[in-house]
Amino acid sequence: MMKKLNLLQKKLGHSFNDETLLVRALTHRSAGSRHNERLEFLGDSILSMVVADALFHRFPKVNEGDMSRMRATLVREKTLAELAREFELGEYLILGPGELKSGGYRRESILADAVEALIGAVYLDTDIERVRELLLSWYDERLNDIQPGVEQKDPKTRLQELLQAKRKPLPTYTVVDVIGEAHNQKFTVHCLVDGLPDPVIGIGTSRRKAEQSAAEHALDTLL
Amino acid sequence: MMKKLNLLQKKLGHSFNDETLLVRALTHRSAGSRHNERLEFLGDSILSMVVADALFHRFPKVNEGDMSRMRATLVREKTLAELAREFELGEYLILGPGELKSGGYRRESILADAVEALIGAVYLDTDIERVRELLLSWYDERLNDIQPGVEQKDPKTRLQELLQAKRKPLPTYTVVDVIGEAHNQKFTVHCLVDGLPDPVIGIGTSRRKAEQSAAEHALDTLL
Repeated sequence: MMKKLNLLQKKLGHSFNDETLLVRALTHRSAGSRHNERLEFLGDSILSMVVADALFHRFPKVNEGDMSRMRATLVREKTLAELAREFELGEYLILGPGELKSGGYRRESILADAVEALIGAVYLDTDIERVRELLLSWYDERLNDIQPGVEQKDPKTRLQELLQAKRKPLPTYTVVDVIGEAHNQKFTVHCLVDGLPDPVIGIGTSRRKAEQSAAEHALDTLL
Repeated sequence: MMKKLNLLQKKLGHSFNDETLLVRALTHRSAGSRHNERLEFLGDSILSMVVADALFHRFPKVNEGDMSRMRATLVREKTLAELAREFELGEYLILGPGELKSGGYRRESILADAVEALIGAVYLDTDIERVRELLLSWYDERLNDIQPGVEQKDPKTRLQELLQAKRKPLPTYTVVDVIGEAHNQKFTVHCLVDGLPDPVIGIGTSRRKAEQSAAEHALDTLL
């Protein structure tokens, strides 16, 4: 395990003084009581602050609404899961037997949560300035690319605007399946889009997330 | 103005190197283009991080859900407006003519926003460690008093639980008035509670906030 973790630390750009923090950050709650949720709570707030500060200085003329939207884009689950895949984090996650089987749809959020937990772990391992430096390196390209404006709209809004621009009818969303218990539900949504022969499927832990996921898939197909 | 600002700086516990930051933090958007909304964005994220970090270390055994609820209590508008009143911030706010007249219901959020803007201003004036130290002094008592558990529930939940415990019917909420344009609306809600002769009134910038406000007033009356 330790040898393997060395490779991960190289990819992350941080070599832990206390490797138990790294192991903790990689441990999903399904794998036992020493899991990463407290670190995730801490890391989430650090990431928000570092990104807010970076945007504040990079965009001296942009209003707080546009800064909020850019930050939301940079810290959302999808972006964090992309980072996780750049680190090949999936290979290092410590999951319980239930999660190992479930695969697919919860994977994205587990990866994103682990990235936040890693941020919390690096902070505890060092200090705020070191974690800031590391985050700015992780986000270097994304911070250079991001611009205030349209890209920060959510997928449903973008899909609607795209269809309106083409003078097509609005998409319709239907929940076709809900499984699981109260706090662990999986929603499946069909999105019907004029011009696409089949409904586009979206899956998520809430109706809203499932709809956004379907809209995003529809945009991928249309654009 | 400068003499007056010296008194405020004493109350805040920070003497600004750059007093234009302080003036900016006190300037509501109604008073002109050099207003405090960008500072508020920055300060909000700093406050969240500092409070998350403080809770993480003070409550080593508490799960992330309880930490989130405690943080929400500590950074919510009501708490920030309390801090503002401790600093007598209302006397220093720079408001446009419209806001000066409107008084009342928007006051709480303007005060809370200005506290966040002050946090952003102190950060830009110094650095993260200095602003952390200052925030921990502002929050000293609140951090000592806060405990994981029931108090962090929102007012509607607490009202419902109180009535259930007394085997009384649940409260009902009705929107009785909405005024203003799309992004600046004011909702008025009536909350009917068994045992109270008149509906309890709540006002807020969204239906949800107006309902929470009504529930809070109902709790004040019942407890």
